[in-house]
Amino acid sequence: MILPETIEQVQSIMRLCHRLNVPVVARGAGTGLSGGALPVEQGVLLSLAKFKNIINIDPAKRLARVQPGVRNLAISQAVEHLGLYYAPDPSSQIACTIGGNVAENSGGVHCLKYGLTVHNIQQLKIVTVEGELLTIGNGGLDSPGYDLLALMTGSEGMLGIIVEITVKLLPTPERAQVLLAAFDDVEKAGAAVGNIISAGIIPAGLEMMDKLAIQAAEDFVHAGYPLNAEAILLCELDGVTEEVSENIISVRQTLLQSGATEVRTAKDELERLTFWKGRKAAFPAVGRISPDYYCMDGTIPRKRLAEVLKAISDLSKHYELPVANVFHAGDGNLHPLILYDANKPGELERTEEFGGQILEFCVKVGGTITGEHGVGMEKINQMCVQFNALELTQFHAVKAAFDPNGLLNPGKAVPELHRCAEFGAMHVHHGQLPFPELERF
Amino acid sequence: MILPETIEQVQSIMRLCHRLNVPVVARGAGTGLSGGALPVEQGVLLSLAKFKNIINIDPAKRLARVQPGVRNLAISQAVEHLGLYYAPDPSSQIACTIGGNVAENSGGVHCLKYGLTVHNIQQLKIVTVEGELLTIGNGGLDSPGYDLLALMTGSEGMLGIIVEITVKLLPTPERAQVLLAAFDDVEKAGAAVGNIISAGIIPAGLEMMDKLAIQAAEDFVHAGYPLNAEAILLCELDGVTEEVSENIISVRQTLLQSGATEVRTAKDELERLTFWKGRKAAFPAVGRISPDYYCMDGTIPRKRLAEVLKAISDLSKHYELPVANVFHAGDGNLHPLILYDANKPGELERTEEFGGQILEFCVKVGGTITGEHGVGMEKINQMCVQFNALELTQFHAVKAAFDPNGLLNPGKAVPELHRCAEFGAMHVHHGQLPFPELERF
Repeated sequence: MILPETIEQVQSIMRLCHRLNVPVVARGAGTGLSGGALPVEQGVLLSLAKFKNIINIDPAKRLARVQPGVRNLAISQAVEHLGLYYAPDPSSQIACTIGGNVAENSGGVHCLKYGLTVHNIQQLKIVTVEGELLTIGNGGLDSPGYDLLALMTGSEGMLGIIVEITVKLLPTPERAQVLLAAFDDVEKAGAAVGNIISAGIIPAGLEMMDKLAIQAAEDFVHAGYPLNAEAILLCELDGVTEEVSENIISVRQTLLQSGATEVRTAKDELERLTFWKGRKAAFPAVGRISPDYYCMDGTIPRKRLAEVLKAISDLSKHYELPVANVFHAGDGNLHPLILYDANKPGELERTEEFGGQILEFCVKVGGTITGEHGVGMEKINQMCVQFNALELTQFHAVKAAFDPNGLLNPGKAVPELHRCAEFGAMHVHHGQLPFPELERF
Repeated sequence: MILPETIEQVQSIMRLCHRLNVPVVARGAGTGLSGGALPVEQGVLLSLAKFKNIINIDPAKRLARVQPGVRNLAISQAVEHLGLYYAPDPSSQIACTIGGNVAENSGGVHCLKYGLTVHNIQQLKIVTVEGELLTIGNGGLDSPGYDLLALMTGSEGMLGIIVEITVKLLPTPERAQVLLAAFDDVEKAGAAVGNIISAGIIPAGLEMMDKLAIQAAEDFVHAGYPLNAEAILLCELDGVTEEVSENIISVRQTLLQSGATEVRTAKDELERLTFWKGRKAAFPAVGRISPDYYCMDGTIPRKRLAEVLKAISDLSKHYELPVANVFHAGDGNLHPLILYDANKPGELERTEEFGGQILEFCVKVGGTITGEHGVGMEKINQMCVQFNALELTQFHAVKAAFDPNGLLNPGKAVPELHRCAEFGAMHVHHGQLPFPELERF
C-alpha cells in the first residue's frame, strides 16, 4: 500500500507503475459494498487517505473544492454555518470519502430529489494512468467536448485516479419533516410509493423497511417503529415551510388511501432524526441478529416493486435463507439483506446464488444490477446478464481510451467477454433465467 | 444526401460507408447554429428527417420513446392532454428535432430549473460506425458500466448515429407566472440575477435582453416591453400555486432592491405568453434590423456578468459593430448577436474576430465557449483556447473508442492538435490574450 500526500506524488507513482506495467487500485475509506477497492495480486494499493483537506469553500458560487479523502459528512459539517450542505448522503457518510463517492456514483436517502453524486459535482482533477494531471468539467452548464465528467463518475477507478473534486452545495431547506406510515402488507406499501410519486410530489427521501428490518432496527436504536407492521415507509418532505405543510397533508391522505394502518408525523426535530436513525442503522442492526448478511443493491421500475418483493420472498423460502428488505423505495433501489451463517457449510454459496438470482430478476423486470454501490468484483458476473457482448465491447473500448494496458483496477466493474462466456453469458433479453419458476412473473 | 426510413437502412448505410471509408454527417432539421450538421466534402449527409414518429408514450413512467426526427415541440404537444410536457425548449423548438437536441445537448429558457437535454433523456439507441445497433442507458437511477448516455449527449454526431430516444416527461406545473423588470443600467440587471439566485429561488427561466434587443423585439412582435430601458429581465416562476405566489413577492422585492425602475407581473396567461414571445422572437427580430448577424454562445460564472457585458460593449466600440445581447442570464449563458453586413468588404472577418474575442473572454473569466449550441465548425478554433493538448488528446482517444477511422462528422467539435498549433494554440491559462487591453479585467 502506498500513501501519497500530494498530487505530484500520485503522478510519480502512476508514471512508475505505468513504466513497470504494475496494476494500481485506488482506495478511499474502503467502505464500498461491492469490493471495488479490493487490492489485486501483484498490484499497488494506492490509498488516498492522506488527501483529507477541504481546499476552498465558495459560498457565493455554492461550491467546495475538496481532496478525495475528505469524508462525505465532513463537507456538510464544514459548510453548515453558511446555511449550505452537500446533498448525496450514503448511509456510510460518517466514514466514506468523497473520492469513493465519485468512483461509485453514490446515492443516499436524498438522491430521489437531489440526484446521485454525478448531479452534485462540477469538476474533477484526475491523474491519468500515464501520470498526467487532467482537469475535467468546468463552471458552465453545458461543457464543450465530450462529457468526461459523467463518464468518470461511477467508473470505479478504472479510468483514472481522482485527486480533487469540486462539489456543488445546496442551501439547507427551510423545513424538513418526516412521515412514518405502517402497513399490514408489503405490497400495499409498495403501491403507496407509486401513489405518492404519481400525485406529483417528489419527497426528499422515501424509504421502505420490512418486518425483519423494522424489528432489527427497533431492537438496536429504539426509533419508535411499530413492531407489528409488515412494512413501514419513511417519507421526508423538505422545502419552504408552506410547501412542506401542504405536502404533508397530501402525502398523509395518499398513504391512508393506499391502506396505511397508521401515519405519524415526527412531532419535533428530535423525533425526525430518531426516525431516520433507525433507517440509517438498519444494516448494522441486521448484523446484530445474524452472524453474516449479504447486502444486495438492484434497481427496478417502481411499478414492479410489489412483484419483485414477492419474488424475493419466494426465493427466500426456496433457499431457506431469511431476507430483511431495506430500501430507497422512491428510486426503486432495493437493498435486500440476505441473512446467513458463513460457518455453516454451503450457506455462503447458497447466499451468493440467491443474491445473483435477485439481481437477475431485477434486470428481467427492466431494472439494473446496481442502484448506487457499483459493480466492483461482487456483481461482475451479473454484468453479463445486464449487457450484451456489443455493449461490453463498447465499454472496453472506452476503457482503452484511458487505460490501454488495463492497469487501473483490473478485474473490476466490466467483465471480459471470456468471463461472461464462462459464466454462461445469460443475457435475459434473449434467454431463459436459470431459475425457471420465476418465468411466471 | 441519403434519407433512410428504418434503423435497418441506417445500419446498411453505415456498414457500407465503413467498408468504403466514406465520412458520414448525421443531420436532423439542420437548425443548429454552430454548423455541426454541415456536410463535408466527399462524404454522405445522412438525414433523419423521415424518422418522425412518436413510437410510444408511457404516462405512468412519464416517458416517451421517439424517433430522432420528431420536432422538439411536437413531443410536448403529443402529451399535453396527459398533463405532461418535455422540458428543454430551445428557441427553435418549432423546427429543431430531438435527435439534434441530443447531439448538441440543447438547452432553452427553462434549463436553469429543468436542466439540459442530458438531464431529460433516459435511453438512446444508436447505430455505431460499423453499423451495429447499440442501446445506451436504462431505467435505473444509477447505471452499471460507464455513463455512455451522458457521453453520447452533446457529442455532435461524432460517436454514433442516434436512431431512437427515450425522453423524460414532466407534469405541467400547476401555475406559471412571469415578471418583467426594467433597468436603466445593464450592470444592475446583471447584479439582480445573482441576487435572485442567492435568495434561494430557482426560477423556471431568467432571461435578459439589452436595449438594442428590446427595441428590435418590440418592433417585431409588440410584446409591450419598455422601450426606454437599458435592459430587461424576464423571470418565470412555476410550481404549486402557493409557492409561486410566495416567490413572486420575494422576486419582486429583490428586483426593486437591485435597482429595477419598474417591475410588472403578467396580468394573465396571454400577457405571459406575449412577454415570452418577444424573447423567443429576439433572434429573427434582430435579423430585421441588420442585413446579417452573428450569434455567439458562451457561458460565464454568473457573478462575472457585469464585467463581461462591459467588455463586450468595449469590443463593440473597438470593432465598430453593434451588439444586441439576448441571453439566459440565470445560467450565465450569453447570446451576444453581432450585427454586420456581409456585403461590406472585411466586415465578416471583423465580426468573426470580434466573436472569437468574446468567446475567449468567456474562457478567461472561468466560463466556456458554448452554453447550449455546441462547437460544430464555428467554434472549433476556440476549443484550442478552452482545452490544453492533454485534454484534447483525451477527447480524441474517446472518439477513437467509437470511431477509430474518424468517419463520423469529421472536422467538427474537437480540433486536431495541428489545427490548434496553426491557430496559435492560445491556452488562456498559460498565455496572453491576443487582445492585450482586455488583460485589465
